[in-house]
Amino acid sequence: MVKQAAIIIIGNEILSGRTQDRNLAYIGKRLQEVGVVLAEARVIPDIEEVIINTVNQCRETFDYVFTTGGIGPTHDDITTASIAKAIGVDIERRQEAVEIMQNYYGTEKVTEARLKMADIPVGATLIDNPVSGAPGYEIENVFVLPGVPDILQPMLDGMLDRLSGGAPILTKTVITNLRESVMAKELEAVQNNYDNINIGSYPFFKQGKLGVNLVMQSTDADKLEKCVDDLHNMIDELDGKVFDDLV
Amino acid sequence: MVKQAAIIIIGNEILSGRTQDRNLAYIGKRLQEVGVVLAEARVIPDIEEVIINTVNQCRETFDYVFTTGGIGPTHDDITTASIAKAIGVDIERRQEAVEIMQNYYGTEKVTEARLKMADIPVGATLIDNPVSGAPGYEIENVFVLPGVPDILQPMLDGMLDRLSGGAPILTKTVITNLRESVMAKELEAVQNNYDNINIGSYPFFKQGKLGVNLVMQSTDADKLEKCVDDLHNMIDELDGKVFDDLV
Repeated sequence: MVKQAAIIIIGNEILSGRTQDRNLAYIGKRLQEVGVVLAEARVIPDIEEVIINTVNQCRETFDYVFTTGGIGPTHDDITTASIAKAIGVDIERRQEAVEIMQNYYGTEKVTEARLKMADIPVGATLIDNPVSGAPGYEIENVFVLPGVPDILQPMLDGMLDRLSGGAPILTKTVITNLRESVMAKELEAVQNNYDNINIGSYPFFKQGKLGVNLVMQSTDADKLEKCVDDLHNMIDELDGKVFDDLV
Repeated sequence: MVKQAAIIIIGNEILSGRTQDRNLAYIGKRLQEVGVVLAEARVIPDIEEVIINTVNQCRETFDYVFTTGGIGPTHDDITTASIAKAIGVDIERRQEAVEIMQNYYGTEKVTEARLKMADIPVGATLIDNPVSGAPGYEIENVFVLPGVPDILQPMLDGMLDRLSGGAPILTKTVITNLRESVMAKELEAVQNNYDNINIGSYPFFKQGKLGVNLVMQSTDADKLEKCVDDLHNMIDELDGKVFDDLV
């Protein structure tokens, strides 16, 4: 059974459209490499009750839950308090985290505000932050990460081996100028030949060009190659073109 | 009471990280302009049961629900079938939609595959698509839109007057070089002076520069200006700088 994960993106700034999230795509890709499917993502505001409910729904539904955002030192950073309440544990000032931050900033610069970032739910395991010191943490099946992509990415990379996934999920893409409406029937016929491959059809319209991305995903590299060949043949037979350079 | 909306982004390609969603930020911004708060977004796969459950949860919880993606002609376009099941209505071939597509493509080019896009849940009101013909639709409090941003954006723009929101939600941003940990206490004090303004603090790290975006949202323009002044004073007193040009 493939392991499934959810991401909870915590932050008003994403919902207001002010900040473009970049963590979903990064986490989705990296999880595939370790055989974990990102099955859902939720973007929610900085409201304690919403965070608690969402974390509890997701941790019961999915094998792994990742949260991003809201673990800094300011008044709107309420993720840790909310996670602790969701799981029903206290928060403690973790000596290990204090020491990490003292080593990173120098002892005199670890202010009371910064020490808030060493307040960690009881029972959590820290996640190393090579960029800016303050750690994330793992508690039960929930992984708590910061929102800044340049900090999140190395933290995620460093903890992926904690997940027990399956074979990597591979992706192949065929890009064509054929309209979806022209190939819909033939494409469905190809899909019907492959039980273990999902073929997605995604039209695009950019740089004045219309086209469709046909995206296949599977853990079986040989079947994927065969499916790519079938799609190339399908496109040939419908007098379409395959683009190599347009993504 | 401010009206609240949710977006449901339907598509495996977003969860796999292959495609970067651009609709959430656009919809979030436009809704603010008409006084509707985007309160949650969910990204879900092309799986009927998941779409049905998510639509039903969201339409009970929020005033408005927007879906994006999955209304094209191919086998993986299952949004309309799922929405109809969620709401408990049949799908019919809508003559009005057939005529729109015949006018757009020319009668002979409206193939059976394209006609799938004229299959609309009974009772829905169409949403005009000035870019590529095939309409979206509104049923109960659910607005069904395509996934391609260049098509979605003019469709959304054309239907915003159907929403009954409140006063536009205004945003101001102050950018500073001060670390969150340096100003956390003072920032909280400013926040405590403004009941009706949310101040969010969002650190960034880019182009080798560390800084923080302080983002204020409110429907009250005068209060917002006053809050901006207070933040400028706070930054001055902490010997920080305000950036005008770094976003």
